[in-house]
Amino acid sequence: MAQQTKPHRRARRASSRAGTRTAQGDKTRREILDVAADIASVEGLEGVTIGRLAQELGMSKSGLFGHFGAKEDLQLAVVDRAKDIFVREVADPAMKAAPGLRRVVAMIDHWLGYVERRVFRGGCFFMAAALEFDGRSGPVRRRIAELSRSWRDALRDEIRRAQAAGDIARHVDADQLAFEVHALAQEANWAHELLGEKDAFARARRGVRVHLRSVSTARRRNHRA
Amino acid sequence: MAQQTKPHRRARRASSRAGTRTAQGDKTRREILDVAADIASVEGLEGVTIGRLAQELGMSKSGLFGHFGAKEDLQLAVVDRAKDIFVREVADPAMKAAPGLRRVVAMIDHWLGYVERRVFRGGCFFMAAALEFDGRSGPVRRRIAELSRSWRDALRDEIRRAQAAGDIARHVDADQLAFEVHALAQEANWAHELLGEKDAFARARRGVRVHLRSVSTARRRNHRA
Repeated sequence: MAQQTKPHRRARRASSRAGTRTAQGDKTRREILDVAADIASVEGLEGVTIGRLAQELGMSKSGLFGHFGAKEDLQLAVVDRAKDIFVREVADPAMKAAPGLRRVVAMIDHWLGYVERRVFRGGCFFMAAALEFDGRSGPVRRRIAELSRSWRDALRDEIRRAQAAGDIARHVDADQLAFEVHALAQEANWAHELLGEKDAFARARRGVRVHLRSVSTARRRNHRA
Repeated sequence: MAQQTKPHRRARRASSRAGTRTAQGDKTRREILDVAADIASVEGLEGVTIGRLAQELGMSKSGLFGHFGAKEDLQLAVVDRAKDIFVREVADPAMKAAPGLRRVVAMIDHWLGYVERRVFRGGCFFMAAALEFDGRSGPVRRRIAELSRSWRDALRDEIRRAQAAGDIARHVDADQLAFEVHALAQEANWAHELLGEKDAFARARRGVRVHLRSVSTARRRNHRA
């Protein structure tokens, strides 16, 4: 029995150690990627190298290579980590608002809030990455484009939901309206990051409010709404 | 006399040669900077190095060093060359429109046209440079910010001119309106460069038209204007 249980125990212990090691490894990986995404928002994804990370984190280059391998794998991992942070800070909180008109406002509001309180040191990670990679090809650019498009599409889908619920006039072009409110938030990011204008967020919010009011059916039903 | 004229002639010839050399040098310098600005619009200003330019132009590194010296001087020269191109392709043609409302429309129209017909391979030079340098400090960032702000301020000043001429309602916040129309053009650049959306320019133009119509006094004077 002792000879039978011993290997099992060893396997269990090993498996438990491996489990801990994996959980610990995932945590370490996330922490590394948080730092990497922050650097990327300021210096660009091209500024995120194994050498730069090793210096920033006081880790060995070989340890970091073990986590990420090639540069492109590291960049893709950074983009996906930035997506998780965007979902946590912007998309998820916005989903708590009622579907339709209120959620459109909440999506822009949380997006502006995430730039304003500097979740990433360099403003919106995805806008910086978009302008850095839009002239290139390959999987990193495709992933940035896919995630960026899906966020603007999500705005459009909420506008359509608001139309279906009768809160936004049916004749309104949802793609056009999504383009315009999305533009206001990106402009705020640009004006804040480049020109240091603190009132950019208030301008964007005001623009969105006026836009949505101009297409809201509540205006017709009740002029003071 | 012969001994007097000879040095004069030599000086004249030398001066004439120097003049040619300077004119030729300026032309070469502009041609180098055109290539550099084009590379920067795609790969970023950080991608513009003496080595990269030497490779692209088939010139020697030492020859290029003679033209530009340090990296920061080269980057500043590229930004200023991009400004000259922007003025030639966007600002100058827009100035041909009558001051005020028409000129606001012309400014956005020429700006969108310059992105659409790819004056720079990577879209709007200044928007790419803004997102690349907004997290940094130093003279290159300051120059990009100064030029970017001055273009949006020029839009605002034309809106004010339109207000003074009675074409745009006086109660309108000119800074807010400039923020919003500027946002639409930048969004078109983003959507075209990252997502490849060809209708982005039409969307931006439509947005600007609706915006300006909503604040135009002509609407009140003549509903069909």
